[in-house]
Amino acid sequence: MRPKHRLEPLLNPAAIAIVGASSNPARIGGMPIAHLTKFGYAGQIYPINPKYREVFGLRCWPDIEALPAAPDLVVLALAAPDVLPMLRRCAAKGVRAVIVYAAGFAEEGEKGAALQAELQAYVATTDLVVAGPNAMGFANLNSQAHTSFASVFNTAPMQAGRGSVSLLTQSGNVCAAVYAIARRLGVDFSHFINTGNEACVDFAQYLEYLAQDAATEVCMGYIEELRDGPRFIAAAEEFARQGKLLILYKAGETDKGSEAVRSHTSALAGDRAIYQAAFRQLDIIQAHDFVQMAQLAHLAGYRHRSAGKRVAIITISGALGAILADKFIAAGLEVPTLPQALQDQLRAGIPDYGMVTNPVDVTGNVVNDPGFVRTAMRALAQSDAVDCVVIYAPGYLLDRMADDLCAVSAQYPRLFVAIDTGAAQTREQLRAGGVPVFEDIGVASAALAPFLLWQERRRHKRWRALRAQAAPQHQALPAVLDEYTTKQLLARHGVPGAGERVATTADEAVAAAQALGYPVVLKVCSPDIAHKTEAGGVRLRLQDAAQVRQAFDEVLSSARRYAPAARIDGVLVARMEAGVAELIVGATRDPVFGMTLTVGLGGVLTELYQDVSHRLLPVDEAIAREMLQELKAYPLLTGYRGRPHADVDAACAAIAAFSCAVLALGAQVAEAEVNPLLVRQQGQGVCMLDALLIPA
Amino acid sequence: MRPKHRLEPLLNPAAIAIVGASSNPARIGGMPIAHLTKFGYAGQIYPINPKYREVFGLRCWPDIEALPAAPDLVVLALAAPDVLPMLRRCAAKGVRAVIVYAAGFAEEGEKGAALQAELQAYVATTDLVVAGPNAMGFANLNSQAHTSFASVFNTAPMQAGRGSVSLLTQSGNVCAAVYAIARRLGVDFSHFINTGNEACVDFAQYLEYLAQDAATEVCMGYIEELRDGPRFIAAAEEFARQGKLLILYKAGETDKGSEAVRSHTSALAGDRAIYQAAFRQLDIIQAHDFVQMAQLAHLAGYRHRSAGKRVAIITISGALGAILADKFIAAGLEVPTLPQALQDQLRAGIPDYGMVTNPVDVTGNVVNDPGFVRTAMRALAQSDAVDCVVIYAPGYLLDRMADDLCAVSAQYPRLFVAIDTGAAQTREQLRAGGVPVFEDIGVASAALAPFLLWQERRRHKRWRALRAQAAPQHQALPAVLDEYTTKQLLARHGVPGAGERVATTADEAVAAAQALGYPVVLKVCSPDIAHKTEAGGVRLRLQDAAQVRQAFDEVLSSARRYAPAARIDGVLVARMEAGVAELIVGATRDPVFGMTLTVGLGGVLTELYQDVSHRLLPVDEAIAREMLQELKAYPLLTGYRGRPHADVDAACAAIAAFSCAVLALGAQVAEAEVNPLLVRQQGQGVCMLDALLIPA
Repeated sequence: MRPKHRLEPLLNPAAIAIVGASSNPARIGGMPIAHLTKFGYAGQIYPINPKYREVFGLRCWPDIEALPAAPDLVVLALAAPDVLPMLRRCAAKGVRAVIVYAAGFAEEGEKGAALQAELQAYVATTDLVVAGPNAMGFANLNSQAHTSFASVFNTAPMQAGRGSVSLLTQSGNVCAAVYAIARRLGVDFSHFINTGNEACVDFAQYLEYLAQDAATEVCMGYIEELRDGPRFIAAAEEFARQGKLLILYKAGETDKGSEAVRSHTSALAGDRAIYQAAFRQLDIIQAHDFVQMAQLAHLAGYRHRSAGKRVAIITISGALGAILADKFIAAGLEVPTLPQALQDQLRAGIPDYGMVTNPVDVTGNVVNDPGFVRTAMRALAQSDAVDCVVIYAPGYLLDRMADDLCAVSAQYPRLFVAIDTGAAQTREQLRAGGVPVFEDIGVASAALAPFLLWQERRRHKRWRALRAQAAPQHQALPAVLDEYTTKQLLARHGVPGAGERVATTADEAVAAAQALGYPVVLKVCSPDIAHKTEAGGVRLRLQDAAQVRQAFDEVLSSARRYAPAARIDGVLVARMEAGVAELIVGATRDPVFGMTLTVGLGGVLTELYQDVSHRLLPVDEAIAREMLQELKAYPLLTGYRGRPHADVDAACAAIAAFSCAVLALGAQVAEAEVNPLLVRQQGQGVCMLDALLIPA
Repeated sequence: MRPKHRLEPLLNPAAIAIVGASSNPARIGGMPIAHLTKFGYAGQIYPINPKYREVFGLRCWPDIEALPAAPDLVVLALAAPDVLPMLRRCAAKGVRAVIVYAAGFAEEGEKGAALQAELQAYVATTDLVVAGPNAMGFANLNSQAHTSFASVFNTAPMQAGRGSVSLLTQSGNVCAAVYAIARRLGVDFSHFINTGNEACVDFAQYLEYLAQDAATEVCMGYIEELRDGPRFIAAAEEFARQGKLLILYKAGETDKGSEAVRSHTSALAGDRAIYQAAFRQLDIIQAHDFVQMAQLAHLAGYRHRSAGKRVAIITISGALGAILADKFIAAGLEVPTLPQALQDQLRAGIPDYGMVTNPVDVTGNVVNDPGFVRTAMRALAQSDAVDCVVIYAPGYLLDRMADDLCAVSAQYPRLFVAIDTGAAQTREQLRAGGVPVFEDIGVASAALAPFLLWQERRRHKRWRALRAQAAPQHQALPAVLDEYTTKQLLARHGVPGAGERVATTADEAVAAAQALGYPVVLKVCSPDIAHKTEAGGVRLRLQDAAQVRQAFDEVLSSARRYAPAARIDGVLVARMEAGVAELIVGATRDPVFGMTLTVGLGGVLTELYQDVSHRLLPVDEAIAREMLQELKAYPLLTGYRGRPHADVDAACAAIAAFSCAVLALGAQVAEAEVNPLLVRQQGQGVCMLDALLIPA
């Protein structure tokens, strides 16, 4: 058996002490005790306060030293200055874990930051697990171990049975808000966790606990900033490996939003696009809304049914079918036209003014022929042309179909989903029968689309498999990193170079040009000059020896004027190349996720339209192809409007080779870029026109 | 007093007969009578069916001829073949309006279309107002004149008082679905209208009625296809003129959605982008969701408060402030940093770990200092830096602020909005006190953003004023429309041309080139060759007389080979121009909205990124500037990354002149295009490089 996780005493304690206990259930020292007693926690509860003999009918202890045994967990309802002395006393007593409510640490200026550093330094010398500070506390809804002062447990209805959805947020208020919404939808919880300042335990450590926690099958999370990227990635991979579902909302979706988050947590919000790429590669569903997140948690209960992105829509109204198709397609799903044989089967029970293509409009007539519903649903449950069936029928019409839907759902694994904008009596029957029910079209598509796309992606676990294999050969960085040596290095990993030579005299330059063939390009070759054009260090379209000689002199003199102290290794002579398109292929080090790869078409419009694709490394040829296909400008590579087809295969191979090169260089490199990578016509390959490596 | 609208007997009848009356409230002949009696319609009700003596306690009449008087309105609960004979009897009796429930008309194949054509032809010979066919019927919720078989009136709670929101849809099922959602939100209705096949009365006529209807202040509409664009525009303008709010959902937001709509209504869904432009120019709020539409109707009740797009956000949680700011900014609103003086005022009551910039985080501490809330709200109500204040406070915290919020709201016209994800007891008090309350952040921003942007736009009614003035001079189209004559025509309206001449001999071409200055361009000039490059009819960068002579011969011979039958008027000699950017400026005729103008940057990427802006004509310089500023590529015109600034003023003037030219040509033109319009550096103007007119 696996040993217990070190957060176990924090999140599943057998005995809890509350220092600063109060008999007032509205105060932070009273509320957790009120919850523990009211909701039936079976473990030991030790209120501690020298002012009281008894609170909530429990014996109150004068101090921690007086307790008959060391509790697993101590909750500190104390002000910031009193925290550290009490931590020392907890450690002396043999306590395993502590929750610190107090604000006044890193979120509050320099003085608070110093106090937090002191706390961290002390805890590092002990075995204590310390949550917070500036946290609202936790709740284990299966054991009813309540350690929070969240008033939401007084207002939202408590679940009747066990739950398997955990909530993990970097804000106490968000934790409470999402809990309230999800409870209204009937989501049953395992853990309620908010992380506060994460002085000693960060988001990724809680996530790691939940990945191992047998009671947790789904986690809804809210992130402002990740502190430990590798640990987060490992925890997310464990979720995926176990088929558990991770739904995350990342704050900072616009710049103003990011700014507010920055002030709030004194932390930089990571780059939106990188988070998005990472979530996708890690099989995480990214939510953008609390209601959507809660609906996803609800849907997650149906994740073992068979589903994917091709949806059949069944309605009693052509208009509503069209609206649903609109929403689904806009959200990335497919609404494929049904095969003719299936259409013929459906037509047998649908009047002429109905539709059978998809959306299927069975018309209001369906009520007169109940046998047809079961036949139609059975046919849809068996068809290879769709992955999921969505039925829109308001109130009483859904009620008439409910028995048939449940019967078909019991017989076949395919996911059926119902949308009822009326007031069907059979909603609970359907949900229990394996058919989730939504009350609104917009809400349904906002939750269904990412859920079905997640189901679809689970079939394609390429990246995580690739990552497991990747063990790159270490490669030392050359001493001098000019354009020529950089290209040579990348070329050794398989990124194709162009024909080019370094010349140190005009004669050598002419000889190189003649060997390569005119027209040629001359570029100054220096590890110290990154912006060669600005330095006057580039001459294009040179047609003969005379032009090469003149250019050689101009390039060197311009470069020397521009950067007198620069080391100049000579002049690069290269064939003047032409192709179908130019790509930019770059790698940058994200502070959270490590090396990430970016691909886009070169040029100023790509920047204005933000038309780029990101992935965490490694990237193989198949992932490179996905990245190119994601670009809006991708048609420029595939014969758009009579243009020649570009050598996409060679481009993908070059991108994968670039990924290998960057992994091999490891921590030595801060940034790497091929810009542009010239893509020639199909069959004619690609080549680097320029390349850059910035050491770490 | 204005005469009553011709739809008055349809929508506000004093007496109603139901032909095909039934005593079963579940049947379509029984349901309207059940509603009329149950909800207390005060007018006369005449059930008609020879099989019954009495239904729902009312005398039932054997036939329409037997009625003591002609009712305003007759509802036909009959099958399609029986409709036309009964219409004749209604006309003979002196009936003013008829509702036809029956399906089996244009929506159902050729035979149905013929039946509908017959109905239309007959009705055109009478004074009858005929709604439907294939309609669910209406409800006037103020007079309780129910003429529908919509079961939603049995399930959704009936409103207690009068309502001022009308619902107008092209689908009966959508009408019922939106009604149910809006009633749950407490929206009170005036009219419930669905238009069916619109054989005789179309969407725009109903809208015209509602614009004039004193009981209607807000209209929620659902459109699949508009049949009468000019009438729609006039009705929407009347809504705007009266300060009434029009909220429309247009089906067909993706191609598959459009396809389903097409099958459903046998009608082409109009172009999405044109609808979007038209809605914006007509002060219509475009909704994309039923819930959003219903929330907008709810918000509309607060439209007389002062509001705009600059929002102050007040929360008790930095995280939630950040999330709100994210949502608002993504939806087009602004969350400006507050002026320093206001920040100082707020800081007086907010602890150090709170924030005062905007979002303002008052922290949970606010509960301890209630006086501060009123002071802060009053300061925000008076600040010139914001237009609207949004307060997020869950449940009990909102309850503590409610009195202060209502007091400040009573004293100042500024709109305050509350968001409560908890369960505040004071929601109704706040709503009654002028403060709308939302229960979810996502829903709140989805409704607030378009509402506040509408408030903002109402201040800028430029286009509608411009349209009222526009009375273009008619201009005849020249007999021959080649590039040269087209440019000459556009130039007469003020679109700048380039220096260019037509040459019919090589000598003339050389003379022209010398007069214009080298380098020059030669282009074949023919009304029959639209694609000059494909025809080999273009030569660029000609440097001297010899090159011009050779090019002249090549251009003519290529063009003759390409199109032997083409009329060739000579060769256009033009200066070779260079500039900062190239625009495409085009006008096309939309089947619904008439001439519309499109502006984009030239080039293949603009097409791939769909980076264009649309407007209905007329477009003046200010609107042209808005259009350019909407382009994602706009920075290319304003010095992006060290590029020269383009002459944006001249471009706007040219676009406005193009608009005038197109209006002057009126119905003679199907399409017009300047592509490219070359934009030179600031101060150096613009010129047409190519232009095209396609006659209607």
